[in-house]
Amino acid sequence: MSLRLNCDLGESFGAWKMGLDEAVMPHIDQANIACGFHAGDPLVMQKTLALAKQHNVMIGAHPGYPDLVGFGRRSIKTSADELKAMLTYQIAAMDGMAASVGLTLAYVKPHGAMYNDMMADSAVRAVVMQAIADYHRPLTLMLQSTPSADQHQQEANDLGLALWFEIFADRCYDDDGKLLARSKEGAVHNKEKMLAQVKQLKDSGTVTTVSGTTLHLRADTLCVHGDNMDGVNAIQQIRELIRS
Amino acid sequence: MSLRLNCDLGESFGAWKMGLDEAVMPHIDQANIACGFHAGDPLVMQKTLALAKQHNVMIGAHPGYPDLVGFGRRSIKTSADELKAMLTYQIAAMDGMAASVGLTLAYVKPHGAMYNDMMADSAVRAVVMQAIADYHRPLTLMLQSTPSADQHQQEANDLGLALWFEIFADRCYDDDGKLLARSKEGAVHNKEKMLAQVKQLKDSGTVTTVSGTTLHLRADTLCVHGDNMDGVNAIQQIRELIRS
Amino acid sequence: MSLRLNCDLGESFGAWKMGLDEAVMPHIDQANIACGFHAGDPLVMQKTLALAKQHNVMIGAHPGYPDLVGFGRRSIKTSADELKAMLTYQIAAMDGMAASVGLTLAYVKPHGAMYNDMMADSAVRAVVMQAIADYHRPLTLMLQSTPSADQHQQEANDLGLALWFEIFADRCYDDDGKLLARSKEGAVHNKEKMLAQVKQLKDSGTVTTVSGTTLHLRADTLCVHGDNMDGVNAIQQIRELIRS
Amino acid sequence: MSLRLNCDLGESFGAWKMGLDEAVMPHIDQANIACGFHAGDPLVMQKTLALAKQHNVMIGAHPGYPDLVGFGRRSIKTSADELKAMLTYQIAAMDGMAASVGLTLAYVKPHGAMYNDMMADSAVRAVVMQAIADYHRPLTLMLQSTPSADQHQQEANDLGLALWFEIFADRCYDDDGKLLARSKEGAVHNKEKMLAQVKQLKDSGTVTTVSGTTLHLRADTLCVHGDNMDGVNAIQQIRELIRS
Repeated sequence: MSLRLNCDLGESFGAWKMGLDEAVMPHIDQANIACGFHAGDPLVMQKTLALAKQHNVMIGAHPGYPDLVGFGRRSIKTSADELKAMLTYQIAAMDGMAASVGLTLAYVKPHGAMYNDMMADSAVRAVVMQAIADYHRPLTLMLQSTPSADQHQQEANDLGLALWFEIFADRCYDDDGKLLARSKEGAVHNKEKMLAQVKQLKDSGTVTTVSGTTLHLRADTLCVHGDNMDGVNAIQQIRELIRS
Repeated sequence: MSLRLNCDLGESFGAWKMGLDEAVMPHIDQANIACGFHAGDPLVMQKTLALAKQHNVMIGAHPGYPDLVGFGRRSIKTSADELKAMLTYQIAAMDGMAASVGLTLAYVKPHGAMYNDMMADSAVRAVVMQAIADYHRPLTLMLQSTPSADQHQQEANDLGLALWFEIFADRCYDDDGKLLARSKEGAVHNKEKMLAQVKQLKDSGTVTTVSGTTLHLRADTLCVHGDNMDGVNAIQQIRELIRS
Repeated sequence: MSLRLNCDLGESFGAWKMGLDEAVMPHIDQANIACGFHAGDPLVMQKTLALAKQHNVMIGAHPGYPDLVGFGRRSIKTSADELKAMLTYQIAAMDGMAASVGLTLAYVKPHGAMYNDMMADSAVRAVVMQAIADYHRPLTLMLQSTPSADQHQQEANDLGLALWFEIFADRCYDDDGKLLARSKEGAVHNKEKMLAQVKQLKDSGTVTTVSGTTLHLRADTLCVHGDNMDGVNAIQQIRELIRS
Repeated sequence: MSLRLNCDLGESFGAWKMGLDEAVMPHIDQANIACGFHAGDPLVMQKTLALAKQHNVMIGAHPGYPDLVGFGRRSIKTSADELKAMLTYQIAAMDGMAASVGLTLAYVKPHGAMYNDMMADSAVRAVVMQAIADYHRPLTLMLQSTPSADQHQQEANDLGLALWFEIFADRCYDDDGKLLARSKEGAVHNKEKMLAQVKQLKDSGTVTTVSGTTLHLRADTLCVHGDNMDGVNAIQQIRELIRS
């Protein structure tokens, strides 16, 4: 299986538009669709699902913390029970809406602060994995590829949960396999470097870190961004590069 | 099939408790569970589903307008698209959460102002029926029994939708088969009159209206209330009466 | 006093941007700032107030129904007590935030469905007027100019409340002095017709209705829109025309 | 000035009731009133203010994180700008509503997780203090009395901000002057121990910690709870003890 492209979509809310969903959808493989807690609303979800169906794009639930004004980017200290319930709720809402337009929800990728908390805190990750494992039908969890991928795979295996690891196409990695903080120089690649990173990943399964070290990283899918037309153009170029 | 008892449950929200769910659940047949838009939250839903499972109670989604502070009791003028999407979302959230604890969602009963709008406005009712008919698996709609029941049944038949008609055990009916407005004397029955109304309904399928007229009303289920211990006791008496 | 220009601003919410506030603010006299119930959030309010201060623009509270996903455009049937309390809350929030950056809140203009309900329903209008009249310091109410302006002025006088009447620069009026429904042809003026309407209003205090009738309308302020650069350019032209 | 009694009130929300506000209000000196972000709504605020006025109780704003479902008990990682703006908004809303019923807002006491974050994190405390100091008229900050009270007072002095220190009547203190964690035995006093703690504080300005050590703690006000009738009775006894 070749590298897939995934993108966060369906992030509009009511009268507020965000993202170029119509422009992006034709060029990606997997749409991470917001579930109404940090972005998206039932009507936006419905429209985004229809768009995914039209372009034959695989769909994932993109659940977040219940924080519209913070766009799910602010960590909220929830109990394990609260976190599990809010995950199941959002996944279920997306699952049933998808099924009602003839689509099958395939995976879950937590959003923003919930994603970061899941990667940084094994207790949070355990809850996320359990929530998906306990869902009434199998769904894959998409998470960040790091040098801890084997350990994360083991955690998932223990629950019978499938994983997809994602690499960020446009972000520079540090020697620990983490994303270089956005505050640091060189954290976000220009288009040339981004394409070089994708090509290297495709050819050798590695990325070159900020210090010049070569790092092997498991990669099932690439996270791309469609906030503006530059982003959309970059997605098209990445796709051509992967398919070539 | 004998008359069933249905009750609104799962109406707590976060730290705020409402209703005597633990006391009521053992004595009813059908739990209308709030879906998080007007009441309920993911954790409350989870707990209410577990309680329903324990007592082998059939579960229904109880969707409402998105209005926590108004408890779904204030009519909101939504577009047909908005209304349909918010119904599908809430139904799906409940459906997937229920399936994940081993329950099968059986029906939908709109809440509060949405219920009233559905009964009073055929355009709203058409959207509600379409939303349920378009859900990816069959669900029954529970609605108020009135002299228009045959017409409502026809509307549902056209969409392949099953209906259950409910009677309010403790409310006095007017000659049009509507609930006597709460502002009017005698609108809410005391326990004696309530039991008499239930007995008559069981024996003859009729209610006696405020003017003394006998009215035939189709009745599949009785709506009961468990806000306090008087209500819980009344539910037990109604159940005994029905089963006797 | 010459005609003023008022514009709805501060309608962004969290990560979602709306309106060209920076481009519009230098060219208007009165900023109607959203108060967080239908749009705006505390940080957006803070930033919008700072922008108004920078450009010496008079500020008004722009309260709406509590309905972010519906952007305050959906009528909600509230009780008089609920409506009055939600108005006082939003006005007070804006008032205290404004005072804390050295500005004085001058007026209140309800938003969207609340504005429409206020114009169409005298009971709603009475509550809005009472809420402002009962506020602890004097604020002016901005409302739509119609042939009922004298009656509205009388209602306000009875409460000791000052009014400003607004005309919509870009909307065609019908013979009843109401806005021609957006669904009808000619409802929204092109720039040429808009400027002609403003010029006529300035010169003679009248508008020409859809049927060609001349209608006197009291006008203290003109409502303009800054959603895009065309709108911003139009605002500049209107301002020049008024000042010429 | 003798010790005052402060209590969190106005924590109902829409149809959900919480706390025995009517029973508590006659027996306290200071009402910490929720501002709509974690509890309370405009109508509840209005009613609580009217009740405070009736019983001549001093009022404080009780702002919290924007998290109704979590009742403001979950820490949310906000930026300094976000935190300051949400504080000003809530304080202003309460201030203007209070003034409109003829009351003068006297102080601010953050709620739940925001209160805990303020006590534990000097950066959060700096933002809270700055928000109150920058409010357009003077308000006092109520915060927990600890052995760091002198340092907190110095921080406040630098901003020209007044402080009131509060002691928890029913909670056991550890040797660091912090509240013994609720999970530990003896964390919450029974009534006898609570009254003894209050008497000692009144007589000597000290508390006896869990280990038996005597700790001097500055005390301007005592935090009491009115969740149930036991709590209300305890409040009455504390008041008699203080006044004796």
